[in-house]
Amino acid sequence: MFPVTGRRSGGEAPTSLATKALTILASFTPERPRLTLSELARESGLALTTTHRVVGDLLAWGALERGSDGAYQIGLRLWETASLAPRGTPLREVALPYMEDLYEATHENVQLAVREDLEVVYVERLTGRGAVRVLTRVGGRFALHATGVGLVLLAHAPTDVQEEALAGPLRRWTDLTITDPARLRAVLAEVRRTGVAVSDRQVTVDALSVACPVHGRGDRVLAALSVVVHADTPVHAVRPAVQAAARGMSRALGAPSALRRPEGIRPRPSRPRSGRSGEEPPL
Amino acid sequence: MFPVTGRRSGGEAPTSLATKALTILASFTPERPRLTLSELARESGLALTTTHRVVGDLLAWGALERGSDGAYQIGLRLWETASLAPRGTPLREVALPYMEDLYEATHENVQLAVREDLEVVYVERLTGRGAVRVLTRVGGRFALHATGVGLVLLAHAPTDVQEEALAGPLRRWTDLTITDPARLRAVLAEVRRTGVAVSDRQVTVDALSVACPVHGRGDRVLAALSVVVHADTPVHAVRPAVQAAARGMSRALGAPSALRRPEGIRPRPSRPRSGRSGEEPPL
Repeated sequence: MFPVTGRRSGGEAPTSLATKALTILASFTPERPRLTLSELARESGLALTTTHRVVGDLLAWGALERGSDGAYQIGLRLWETASLAPRGTPLREVALPYMEDLYEATHENVQLAVREDLEVVYVERLTGRGAVRVLTRVGGRFALHATGVGLVLLAHAPTDVQEEALAGPLRRWTDLTITDPARLRAVLAEVRRTGVAVSDRQVTVDALSVACPVHGRGDRVLAALSVVVHADTPVHAVRPAVQAAARGMSRALGAPSALRRPEGIRPRPSRPRSGRSGEEPPL
Repeated sequence: MFPVTGRRSGGEAPTSLATKALTILASFTPERPRLTLSELARESGLALTTTHRVVGDLLAWGALERGSDGAYQIGLRLWETASLAPRGTPLREVALPYMEDLYEATHENVQLAVREDLEVVYVERLTGRGAVRVLTRVGGRFALHATGVGLVLLAHAPTDVQEEALAGPLRRWTDLTITDPARLRAVLAEVRRTGVAVSDRQVTVDALSVACPVHGRGDRVLAALSVVVHADTPVHAVRPAVQAAARGMSRALGAPSALRRPEGIRPRPSRPRSGRSGEEPPL
């Protein structure tokens, strides 16, 4: 859907200047957030003169900045513009209070993620200081088939996306990572049935994550919410809190299923028309 | 420094395709985060055919997405790339735990902002549900001369930036907004001297903000941290918490002044070489 232009594939150089500008922006990575002009030319596969010209445009607009050492970095103006991406900052703004509630209740890692193609993108993360180590960062990506949020997002992805993901390659992080497509298919069906995904030491040997879908209008799955805890924590100690927070978010996002009263709640008895109201307990 | 290209100024159309792509991105605003092709052409001042072509490039790369109604919106891929802006998400990642501490201690609005040209850009904001209303949003901008964070950032800006800001126009939000350059100059000197800025009902009639600078390497002021409270809250009830959190952030960012032991702390008496150690209280 979105071609990967961050790295040259097959040596084809991008053609339009607009695409060249985007290719230069995509040269920056979490590992290399600051690059010199020649590094930008090398990473983008563009001629040095073209790079120089496009970088000039990007700099003038504020999409790039120069750090105190003269190296280029992504500019605050681009960050501001990009903060309008509906699946980024605005989603996060709605979700954050519920994530904070969840953090306050657990003091563990709380994560919110969306799907982009065959990967998870982390939109927000709250990390407790004593919480178990996780491999993710805000704005970072991860495979769909291993984490709790990934399993939720994969379970609710269109069929063609699921088939493409199951066709692999399915990377193994630990001995418990599920890399067998048939087993993964069964897990996804279970996630859809129960509304909860559990990734038990499937990414790191000491972490377990419990994730639930976050729904929006029309009950579409927009995102997944998870708590990542030490692997010795029982799932039932975390699951209700994640479910409740995900439902709160879904309601805030206008999901019909989260606006309905849950089934099985016994209605409060109506006040008797006559008689000893003095016997009723105060509210 | 960064020309405003979001709105046509003087009718000049951008020249290079790279700049055209950026101009199209800048057409999106918090008020209008979703635009049709013809709206994009109108906002950017580009011909419809050019807009169509550049939007195609942006869409293919993932800088734009189409919503369920077919309208264009900023894409998650751009949000991911832009999250590498050092003054955006990475600064926020360091700051967030301290902001959460401050929120937990006050349950009021906690804000982190940086300066871009003559404006404040809000990088992070935590909002208590019962907290006083504020006019800001993450990724949004505000004038330098009225808010607590703005006064901190203006007080520590280069002289030419200060002069440009003081030359105005200085917008008035309330009767208490300071719009007299001489008075503002005195306030800025006081902010530098005390390390604290107070904006008392200078933006809205019911809010007061207390802000402190956040320092980085070489003790450069990188950002400002504030708490916004109801105007009837005494400043001294908020100031120490803001100062402590800002110092914690500065230390995490490697600021020398925040790594030194504060002056005036009495050293713990060293253990006596001989004698009745049994009389000492256990540690």
